[in-house]
This record gives sequence, C-alpha cells and structure tokens, in this order.
Amino acid sequence: MRLTQFTDFGLRALMRLAGAPDRAFATAELAREFGISRHHLAKVVARLASAGLVRTRRGGGGGLSLARPAETITLGEVVRLLEADQALVECFATTGGGCTLLPDCRLKGRLARAEIAFLAELDRSTLADCAWKPRAA
Amino acid sequence: MRLTQFTDFGLRALMRLAGAPDRAFATAELAREFGISRHHLAKVVARLASAGLVRTRRGGGGGLSLARPAETITLGEVVRLLEADQALVECFATTGGGCTLLPDCRLKGRLARAEIAFLAELDRSTLADCAWKPRAA
Repeated sequence: MRLTQFTDFGLRALMRLAGAPDRAFATAELAREFGISRHHLAKVVARLASAGLVRTRRGGGGGLSLARPAETITLGEVVRLLEADQALVECFATTGGGCTLLPDCRLKGRLARAEIAFLAELDRSTLADCAWKPRAA
Repeated sequence: MRLTQFTDFGLRALMRLAGAPDRAFATAELAREFGISRHHLAKVVARLASAGLVRTRRGGGGGLSLARPAETITLGEVVRLLEADQALVECFATTGGGCTLLPDCRLKGRLARAEIAFLAELDRSTLADCAWKPRAA
C-alpha cells in the first residue's frame, strides 16, 4: 500500500507551516529544506491552495502559510484531498477498469471499508499534532 | 492510496480458487479468464506458492489450488504478503529514504497506525467470504 510522493510532500509542507504559524515560507525555501524538487512541490502547493488549506501572498513578507488553524485540519482531510485521483485498485477508478469479477465481486466493498478505516484513523490527528520545527541549533 | 497490480491480481486468483475448491486451474486459464498477462500472473502465483497459500501440481489433473481452507486465509494475510515490499511512504522503506523531518517526525507513527487499521479491517474477512464463481450460463 502506497501513498503518492505528491501526498508525502504535501504533508511535509503542511507540517512545516504548522510548526511556524507566525511566518510565511517561499516554496523554494521549503523545497531546499526538504531536499526535494521545487517544481514538484509547487504543484502540491497549488493543489493545497486551491483547496483552501494554504494561502499564498505575493510581495515582501509574502509567501506560504496555513489558511486555517492547524488544529482544524485533520490528516484524513489532507490525505483524502491529495490522494483524490488514486484508485485503491483498478475498479475504484472512475473509468472502472476491466476486472472480469465485477459485478459479482465480494472483495470491492471490503477494500472500500478498509480504506475508510485507514482514513478514519488519520482523522483522529490534526496538523497541530504533527507540527514540525527544526531543532534549536 | 494504491495497492499494486500484483496484489490485485493475486486477490483475483485466490478468490477464483476459493470459488472452486474441488478443482485445479492452469495459470494460463486464470489469466485468460481475467484478461490479464499470463507472465504477470505467473509471478504472483509463484509468490503465493512460496508463502504456502497455493499449491501447484504438475501433470494430468494438476494445476493450481488453495493450499489451505479458504476460511482460514484472511484478506489481511494476503495483502500483507503481496504488499510486503511496498512502503506506505518513503521513510517506511528499509532504506529509510531521505526525509529531512526525521527523526522528529510526529506523522510517521500516525501513518503506521492507519496502515494497521486498514489491515485489521481486512483481517475481518476471509477468502471464503470473497469466493467467486462464474454465473451459471
């Protein structure tokens, strides 16, 4: 079972923002800190912004910050958003795939319930629980 | 969140075997029924056989069948086996990856608990619950 790198990077960025609510970050700064592609991170940030999780302000003192208090954003909400186009198995995709066991499959509903259990567990924590700061030097 | 196609195909094969406990199948027959690559399915079957979930017998009347009663094989056991080398995120891999948020990350343990919840839900069902047969013509 895998989450995408897109989701992984999004979670890292949100944890970092949650750890410094008093300031804004440039995407390039976060990418450098994490040692990851700035281009890739920018795409994640765009998704987070369009979903209203982060706010981007231009100009001096501008940059990226959480758009809502960290304690109101659950990990489940973030993962649901960033994994929205990831089908657990082929038949979960909107295109449906070509599995010949449908429509009599008794597995699909069980996999769906397992995915719900995964997300429900993540709903028990918020970004505030996972706020991250660099260690004091 | 995605399971591999390897796992997907393995589950399909096991569901089919569970639905016809009185006979054996050639891998090629299953691949044809499912409309999938025989080569790919053969690799999955090899993994299932080495883990003692299926038995392969050569010769006339030979072929593939479940090595244990379907009601003793949980979906969780199958998914754990077939996803064994899939790290939920980079830092779950044995190589550890390069995430700069470690070792102070407060997300990793929460993701691990969510994965456990996913598998625990799958442990509530067995292959007998998901046995599949073609519809009577």
